[in-house]
Amino acid sequence: MKTVGIVGASGYAGGELARLLARHPHVRIGCVVSNTFAGKPFSTAFPGLAGTEVGALTCQSQDAVRTGLAVDFVFLAQENGAAMKVVGELLKLGRRVVDISADFRLRDIETYEKWYRIEHEAADILHNQSVAYGLPELNRDYVVGAPLVANPGCYPTATILALAPLLSRGLIRSQGIVVDAKSGVSGAGRSRSDQGFRYSEANESVKPYGIAGTHRHVPEIEQELSAHAAPDNVRIVFTPHLIPMTRGILVTCYAPLARGGTTTEDLLGALHAAYDGTHFVVVRDVDDPLPATKDVYGSNYCHVTARVDSRTGTAVVISVIDNLVKGAAGQAVQNMNLMLGYAETAGLEGVGIWP
Amino acid sequence: MKTVGIVGASGYAGGELARLLARHPHVRIGCVVSNTFAGKPFSTAFPGLAGTEVGALTCQSQDAVRTGLAVDFVFLAQENGAAMKVVGELLKLGRRVVDISADFRLRDIETYEKWYRIEHEAADILHNQSVAYGLPELNRDYVVGAPLVANPGCYPTATILALAPLLSRGLIRSQGIVVDAKSGVSGAGRSRSDQGFRYSEANESVKPYGIAGTHRHVPEIEQELSAHAAPDNVRIVFTPHLIPMTRGILVTCYAPLARGGTTTEDLLGALHAAYDGTHFVVVRDVDDPLPATKDVYGSNYCHVTARVDSRTGTAVVISVIDNLVKGAAGQAVQNMNLMLGYAETAGLEGVGIWP
Amino acid sequence: MKTVGIVGASGYAGGELARLLARHPHVRIGCVVSNTFAGKPFSTAFPGLAGTEVGALTCQSQDAVRTGLAVDFVFLAQENGAAMKVVGELLKLGRRVVDISADFRLRDIETYEKWYRIEHEAADILHNQSVAYGLPELNRDYVVGAPLVANPGCYPTATILALAPLLSRGLIRSQGIVVDAKSGVSGAGRSRSDQGFRYSEANESVKPYGIAGTHRHVPEIEQELSAHAAPDNVRIVFTPHLIPMTRGILVTCYAPLARGGTTTEDLLGALHAAYDGTHFVVVRDVDDPLPATKDVYGSNYCHVTARVDSRTGTAVVISVIDNLVKGAAGQAVQNMNLMLGYAETAGLEGVGIWP
Amino acid sequence: MKTVGIVGASGYAGGELARLLARHPHVRIGCVVSNTFAGKPFSTAFPGLAGTEVGALTCQSQDAVRTGLAVDFVFLAQENGAAMKVVGELLKLGRRVVDISADFRLRDIETYEKWYRIEHEAADILHNQSVAYGLPELNRDYVVGAPLVANPGCYPTATILALAPLLSRGLIRSQGIVVDAKSGVSGAGRSRSDQGFRYSEANESVKPYGIAGTHRHVPEIEQELSAHAAPDNVRIVFTPHLIPMTRGILVTCYAPLARGGTTTEDLLGALHAAYDGTHFVVVRDVDDPLPATKDVYGSNYCHVTARVDSRTGTAVVISVIDNLVKGAAGQAVQNMNLMLGYAETAGLEGVGIWP
Repeated sequence: MKTVGIVGASGYAGGELARLLARHPHVRIGCVVSNTFAGKPFSTAFPGLAGTEVGALTCQSQDAVRTGLAVDFVFLAQENGAAMKVVGELLKLGRRVVDISADFRLRDIETYEKWYRIEHEAADILHNQSVAYGLPELNRDYVVGAPLVANPGCYPTATILALAPLLSRGLIRSQGIVVDAKSGVSGAGRSRSDQGFRYSEANESVKPYGIAGTHRHVPEIEQELSAHAAPDNVRIVFTPHLIPMTRGILVTCYAPLARGGTTTEDLLGALHAAYDGTHFVVVRDVDDPLPATKDVYGSNYCHVTARVDSRTGTAVVISVIDNLVKGAAGQAVQNMNLMLGYAETAGLEGVGIWP
Repeated sequence: MKTVGIVGASGYAGGELARLLARHPHVRIGCVVSNTFAGKPFSTAFPGLAGTEVGALTCQSQDAVRTGLAVDFVFLAQENGAAMKVVGELLKLGRRVVDISADFRLRDIETYEKWYRIEHEAADILHNQSVAYGLPELNRDYVVGAPLVANPGCYPTATILALAPLLSRGLIRSQGIVVDAKSGVSGAGRSRSDQGFRYSEANESVKPYGIAGTHRHVPEIEQELSAHAAPDNVRIVFTPHLIPMTRGILVTCYAPLARGGTTTEDLLGALHAAYDGTHFVVVRDVDDPLPATKDVYGSNYCHVTARVDSRTGTAVVISVIDNLVKGAAGQAVQNMNLMLGYAETAGLEGVGIWP
Repeated sequence: MKTVGIVGASGYAGGELARLLARHPHVRIGCVVSNTFAGKPFSTAFPGLAGTEVGALTCQSQDAVRTGLAVDFVFLAQENGAAMKVVGELLKLGRRVVDISADFRLRDIETYEKWYRIEHEAADILHNQSVAYGLPELNRDYVVGAPLVANPGCYPTATILALAPLLSRGLIRSQGIVVDAKSGVSGAGRSRSDQGFRYSEANESVKPYGIAGTHRHVPEIEQELSAHAAPDNVRIVFTPHLIPMTRGILVTCYAPLARGGTTTEDLLGALHAAYDGTHFVVVRDVDDPLPATKDVYGSNYCHVTARVDSRTGTAVVISVIDNLVKGAAGQAVQNMNLMLGYAETAGLEGVGIWP
Repeated sequence: MKTVGIVGASGYAGGELARLLARHPHVRIGCVVSNTFAGKPFSTAFPGLAGTEVGALTCQSQDAVRTGLAVDFVFLAQENGAAMKVVGELLKLGRRVVDISADFRLRDIETYEKWYRIEHEAADILHNQSVAYGLPELNRDYVVGAPLVANPGCYPTATILALAPLLSRGLIRSQGIVVDAKSGVSGAGRSRSDQGFRYSEANESVKPYGIAGTHRHVPEIEQELSAHAAPDNVRIVFTPHLIPMTRGILVTCYAPLARGGTTTEDLLGALHAAYDGTHFVVVRDVDDPLPATKDVYGSNYCHVTARVDSRTGTAVVISVIDNLVKGAAGQAVQNMNLMLGYAETAGLEGVGIWP
């Protein structure tokens, strides 16, 4: 039994880590760090945890991070810009770390600084080859041995899983790709108090944001997809939309077919080839119902399917995840499992909650 | 004061017609036809109408349509395939008609029969030049004089208003257009009892349907957009999605720019040129918040905006409507106003209900 | 055509006043006051108003109130404690006023100060007999001539309309009454940023608040019900609940029957006797469907019904309103109509929006 | 490892059983019975199960029940009236059974037949003392040895857990109790296709149903509460409401205090005394936030609290559960655990999913 610490435990990803790790067979939550709730029981942050073991843990302040938290493994689940300040010390103390923020996802520091408007203070770590981009289905080998894993963003997870196998097999072109994404409101995080995220204003409404290539997940998606399309560079048009639901991301991707005559079976075949050996990515076939976000609500699964639109020579590729699980905390646990040598599915056995 | 009849009055579009017409300054609802509720007060179909004048009307059975309903004007708001059976008689009796179904939207009978799998029984009327496609902002002159107006579908209304001005001005290409549409559940109509439309299953979920060019609104959108792109034929990739909300459609359109150097201002300029003289289509500028469906909830407005994604040379065009108002009953009233010579806005003065 | 001003125009009640008054046949919105949006077009506060006449009005700052706003009539729609500071000056300038806050609802100053924890600065006005409690169906005569009308709270409106006729006719006892209320989230107002009102946390959840006689609407309800139960004093147990919907209040009231043998017909008869002459309160009979908040969504109606639970000798009385219309802005317009001598229904003709 | 069968597996309770049992440490799902999906993979009924072990099970037809399903333990999760037809045979074959329907909850056959309008065909079994009412926190000893357990209804679970300790300790009176219940839509079950349960009509609306003592859960609640109030008979006024959410029940109970001077601490003390030894019932104290259904979403917990309304001498008692877990499938698993000698919490360790 190893112990883990969660830094930024009172946010949505932090709470989700606690939910998942509370049922993990091989690790125990040793400490939870939350400046907001320091000194109080963790159940103050999440009243639903009243009466549970994890809810009885006392939240520690951020100061505790410096001494390594007296745990074997650390999850950083804070705002962008926070992990870069503490990860160096944690690594020196021998902790292995999964960072759920964006701080170590982009390999190019200038790109990070341009899109996030934060000066990067840990260039040395970022340039260290042992930082892995933690999308296990495509990157498992790098994750296993990495001391630090950058957990992918929610939109990138759904998008890269949908498109990478088709790019790497040359079925779609690397240019002219459109990614239209729909996300539940929890994707904005717990600390966002903007009016647009209040119930009365988000309910019964759908709206786009960060359109025309201005959303921060664009460079992350392009970086990873380009790796699968090499030597081509991938450019996407990306539009995220806010949907009146709490959890879930659905991405609808449109890509020009590389060759005439490509069929739906070709696309599905490529997805099967990529994912049939994995546990969490399920390919839906032509006769299956189309994926809905509810199918993966609360689970670490990603369901993906594809069709050829023969009238226009376009591949339509669809994937769904729960943004807080496969898009954040669940994938972080999956990465930890690989790093610590556990079964990849440990603590993540649950199927979605439905309806 | 003229009198109007609503056939198919107990459906969602029928109820919405009643709501709008109850406040119309120049017409009065003379009769409501609903086989399901024949002989009962209209408020049985819509309990919220209890205690109102319109709610006290007695529903008539479909038989009443044959004699022309003793009204001056008729709205047909039934399932596809029903209008074609009665419209001939109504026209002969001198009634002018707006049909909210798809029966008279497609000019090519084979296309209708292929997509709707219904044999068309009124080819003579369809081929008559005086059937107008009732999108007043683009088609006003045809509507004014038409005895029969085919009211556009909800997705086509939002999509055509977004793209037609950019096509007709040559700003975007006619090929490679992607239309990603998001609709509230009421778009499925009141008679749909499929499990997917039940609360517990539609709630907290987003899902695509009718993907890869299989949705019936595709030929309607392409027919009308092609008219604006002549001599080009427009082909679109269209994906509708079901969103957990009752009302509202947002379409996000992606189109390759026709020329390098085209700017967001060029796109917005074209939209302003097309719509600044209209009442119901509002162009949102760069500094305005992006359109949300909630902005037009319950109103006959369409809000539209556009951006150039300069990284990829793509126009991103967004429009929102209330599917039951501008996408159905409201536009039908707008068409009636034009046909009867009233102010285009009569009965439609309301702004959206928010929040 | 008279002109009206709305102070606190950028809140939910202010926006709803604008929506309703924009279609009023006899008044025109002369000015909108919002400190937050001073100097900007009103459509900045409500993007859905872009392109409309009312949306083009420039918001004025609070300072403008001192000079009476150059209008004939004023709606005050601010936080509690604000109206008391300006209403004296407005009345002196000859403006008639409807105040939507709680400042003038309680006749006893000590009660106000105890429940609202605000020092009352306009005792002179409050004690003036010409302040009317603006529930027109029960108080019409006082409203007509009053220079200042205190617009009732949302919970009190629904509760008093449900119970007053039964109390005044001696059908139920004045003690042992339970009022269990369910409200949509917009009741909290636009300025509340508490986490509990954010979409992700309010969605898919119902919770009570202000229980065991601690909600501020308790003294208001008891004051008014006691007037109908005189010489008895009414005491209620009141529990409000937050429901995952934007608009709507449903109150379920439980009251011991005063006499054995009382029937459902007796209760409904009393409600009919009280409301059959009114426009906005509709009594639902035994064969009608039970009232749902959706039946009055966006309208100024209140639907009410009652049943005898013969097993326990209890009257169960249910009423529904839209908290922003009959529970706030709609009732304010209704009061203005009476004060200015217009038809009581002017500008409020709309039926609910459904579904 | 024992094997279990689920009859009625394609309903909401059946699906929830599958979700919970898939992670149970000591049992394995041996067969799933669903007439609707007989011969098809279980994932056809629940697309979210695609790619999982349980989803790959082939659904069997109802016929399979007669031979005992070749499992060690059976869950019956069908419509009322079905269990009584098969349970006798299952018991004879040595299967132990938890029945989630109402067939064996009421000890008096006439009461069952009156409220459910179904002739009871298994009077012999019902009268057998070894049928236990499966509310483990109050009834554990009876459950342990019972061959057949009647799983309580969702409303009764929440209500009885709230009130039983206060009745048995004489803190509240047995007469004059009001139970105002709010339930998510999934409580209606998967087979209900009524219009009122469709998304567009249930959304943004709250409505009562089965009012004034007509809901079938009334006799069940009264039977069990009376056992705790003996020799008194308990009579309640019960009003269920449909709330626009998928899962969750909150009951707000109002009961006259038995004695003057009773305090909130007295009530909470009684609840603590009853539940502090249990795992799943958590008492919220005065300083804790009030319970919300979201706190127990997807978990087997019941959170309960109480307050004295000193103005009226009333106890206000509130409890929340997930209707499909503690109100159905979770409690069924808890009962099975007790019957088979496993830890009561086996397979139910999960905390709620939040937000």
